[in-house]
Amino acid sequence: MSDNKKAVVHVRLKDGVLDPQGVTIHKALLQMGYDDIQSVRTGRFFELEISEKASDIDRKIDEVCSKLLANPVIEKYSVEKLG
Amino acid sequence: MSDNKKAVVHVRLKDGVLDPQGVTIHKALLQMGYDDIQSVRTGRFFELEISEKASDIDRKIDEVCSKLLANPVIEKYSVEKLG
Repeated sequence: MSDNKKAVVHVRLKDGVLDPQGVTIHKALLQMGYDDIQSVRTGRFFELEISEKASDIDRKIDEVCSKLLANPVIEKYSVEKLG
Repeated sequence: MSDNKKAVVHVRLKDGVLDPQGVTIHKALLQMGYDDIQSVRTGRFFELEISEKASDIDRKIDEVCSKLLANPVIEKYSVEKLG
């Protein structure tokens, strides 16, 4: 096994931005009889495996998020580092 | 504010299942010069708001995951309950 570190990036729509995929899933759940579920919001996550020799990785992950993984106009992201 | 509970469902590809989206993101990162990142795996998550009066909710969430949110043939899911 490698000694690489991991980071998990969660990307979700900003509050107030309509989530059509979540709305569609919620409607499907109601049709299926699951009326205890009152809303659904969707998001994406990315598990990044990071070289143990990496330096300045917080800044790099932040750049990667805003340049590639998220659309900062409508989305927000959070980074969780593991191991 | 409501007293509703929340559950977060994470859906990811099973180990060994190729993740073309993750591979593509990883290639893009290498081209952008971020060679400290050694692999990328992608996934989706769903934030479910659950009525506080709901009963037997663990079973229901499990059903919802396997019927609608995940494809059990190639994906696995995990459920985290909040509040």
